Amino acid sequence: MSVVRSGFRAAGVAAGIKSSGAKDVTLVVNDGPLDLAAGVFTTNKVKAAPVLWSQQVIATGRARAVVLNSGGANACTGPEGFGDTHATAEHVAAVLGVGAVDVAVCSTGLIGERLPMDRLRAGIDDAAARLAGTAEAGTDAATAVMTTDTVPKQAGVAGDGWSVGGFAKGAGMCAPNMATMLAVLTTDAVLDPAELDPALRAAVTTTFNRLDVDGGTSTNDTVLLLCSGASGVRPAPGTFAEALRAACAELVAQLQADAEGVTKHVTVTVRGAGTDEGAVAAARAVAGDNLCKTAFFGSDPNWGRIAMAVGNAPVDFDPADLDITLNGVPVCRAGTAGEDRAKADLSGRDVTVEIDLHAGEGVGTVLTTDLSHGYVEENSAYST
Amino acid sequence: MSVVRSGFRAAGVAAGIKSSGAKDVTLVVNDGPLDLAAGVFTTNKVKAAPVLWSQQVIATGRARAVVLNSGGANACTGPEGFGDTHATAEHVAAVLGVGAVDVAVCSTGLIGERLPMDRLRAGIDDAAARLAGTAEAGTDAATAVMTTDTVPKQAGVAGDGWSVGGFAKGAGMCAPNMATMLAVLTTDAVLDPAELDPALRAAVTTTFNRLDVDGGTSTNDTVLLLCSGASGVRPAPGTFAEALRAACAELVAQLQADAEGVTKHVTVTVRGAGTDEGAVAAARAVAGDNLCKTAFFGSDPNWGRIAMAVGNAPVDFDPADLDITLNGVPVCRAGTAGEDRAKADLSGRDVTVEIDLHAGEGVGTVLTTDLSHGYVEENSAYST
Repeated sequence: MSVVRSGFRAAGVAAGIKSSGAKDVTLVVNDGPLDLAAGVFTTNKVKAAPVLWSQQVIATGRARAVVLNSGGANACTGPEGFGDTHATAEHVAAVLGVGAVDVAVCSTGLIGERLPMDRLRAGIDDAAARLAGTAEAGTDAATAVMTTDTVPKQAGVAGDGWSVGGFAKGAGMCAPNMATMLAVLTTDAVLDPAELDPALRAAVTTTFNRLDVDGGTSTNDTVLLLCSGASGVRPAPGTFAEALRAACAELVAQLQADAEGVTKHVTVTVRGAGTDEGAVAAARAVAGDNLCKTAFFGSDPNWGRIAMAVGNAPVDFDPADLDITLNGVPVCRAGTAGEDRAKADLSGRDVTVEIDLHAGEGVGTVLTTDLSHGYVEENSAYST
Repeated sequence: MSVVRSGFRAAGVAAGIKSSGAKDVTLVVNDGPLDLAAGVFTTNKVKAAPVLWSQQVIATGRARAVVLNSGGANACTGPEGFGDTHATAEHVAAVLGVGAVDVAVCSTGLIGERLPMDRLRAGIDDAAARLAGTAEAGTDAATAVMTTDTVPKQAGVAGDGWSVGGFAKGAGMCAPNMATMLAVLTTDAVLDPAELDPALRAAVTTTFNRLDVDGGTSTNDTVLLLCSGASGVRPAPGTFAEALRAACAELVAQLQADAEGVTKHVTVTVRGAGTDEGAVAAARAVAGDNLCKTAFFGSDPNWGRIAMAVGNAPVDFDPADLDITLNGVPVCRAGTAGEDRAKADLSGRDVTVEIDLHAGEGVGTVLTTDLSHGYVEENSAYST
């Protein structure tokens, strides 16, 4: 399923912002009857102009449309860049016959360059003319936000007479708190205005914010949720939040699979921390450690690096209690060597790291990737 | 200059701990008349047995000898591993006719494997027989601690009738707080017992702890300072601490130059933070960011990644005031594009990143390297 569901139309077009000529402008329109919206944004202090703008839009709890462009982040572009975002929203609003404050804006691409506004405006006109409620239109929308992504990412979960789904982009800089990650989720369920924000925050916390590709948290990260209510069906209590979480998790799995240069899908689970937050922090320390990540790339069961990384995490435990299990093999028990590390076969695509700190009941999981030659290759020449 | 100076003898031998047959046991002996010592150790919660042992030795403020081995970290080896370290100190003590509590121990290599104690004991006997006060012996000592280092690192600073110097090892996992970094410094100056520890801590804080190669902080990091007083000369106030800092800085420059897979020497200086600590934290956020490090590898003046990284640092500033200068070119001014990024030529070996937050008087510098194919290659197959 895509971003297109009952009450929504979408389009994705090539406006010439990307020099490659690939699609680079997406428009998603909510035709109602409801126009509820919620959003979660980057925690980076350096926020792109579209983030600053969309935070104001979302503060109203409503939105009628989202316009997204790839090919330029419109970050570190000063008051002029903010003016460009404002003008973008004004243009979409004029075309759709709504107010600018009803239009959220997202951008992704190189930081520090102004957007070619003439091309962007023409692209918006083209997209508006192509708006449709078809699966093809949804895929076009998911395609036009791609940067180094190799495939569009779409997901959806059906409820009882209603559904939720959407698209996401992001293939690097995915890290604590959604770096260079854009996602738009839509639902035709009938929801109360107060339901959206907590459901979205809860879903993002346990999905997008648990994927750590390279520790960067970008200037542009945005996850938006739009609600049309067009199904006329009100979900049973709790079912919407769970469906939203499932849709986000599906998108995260696709982001992990398409991460830059990835050869391994690594799942790090920490148990026995004092709190769940502590467990997540410990898992993140392993997921973000370059020595662990290069060992994963080499299919090397070098558990000492994992012990080193978890020992640097801001979490209390007794090193003499530390257990580490790699793909089911208990390679470290009670802080010392367990079974022969050579028994842990990491040559496949999936690597599971289980750590038990034996210091409490806290549990947390973080997804990551390996650090490969492909990652270095893709990231060593980008801006020039 | 090396670890060998007036009052000291050293040796480095091949004991067969490394399968390569390279030198792997170092012995440094202080013949006095003073036997003062100080040490700084890893902050990792998972501390190797030799760290736990040497912390007890250094707590006395005295040491007569240091024995170091490469080829095995003796970390995550449990009570048996601690017993091995204790036995190592006992063996050195018996050979030298001192007490075991006079002997500090350092180890480096793979985590989670016991040391071959028979070989280590034989190596100690061999090293004791070869102890000498020559430059060759000092170089042997510096060589036998090497792991993935390609060259031994030695430094020295001469005072007025006294001197300070030593060796260091470490080519990866060099990061906040000295990961997999071992260093032994010696001086023949006449010092008060109370002078050593603050001088060493101050020197380490502004030298070893400002080098960040890959964010890992190891289980074994140790910097030791031994004082023989054999010159009979008491340095003028302040001059010893400054000479010690200079010797440490010389070693750090060599560690940076020999970091695994390095093609760039990167110096990140942050000015205008609220405090010096904040400036160092901001510089560390840039130095530790994989997207910045791959851009350095690609000689890519992608300053947006630097803005992104500093925006994630735990330091307050107004993004609209951010200045970034790359190799002297002001590529970002007041949070937006400054001069054309293409003017910043990063193709040479040295890259200088200057960041001004305009939020105070704090200044700090962190040294780092690029993230290269060579780094991935060296670190993706190590334990097996």
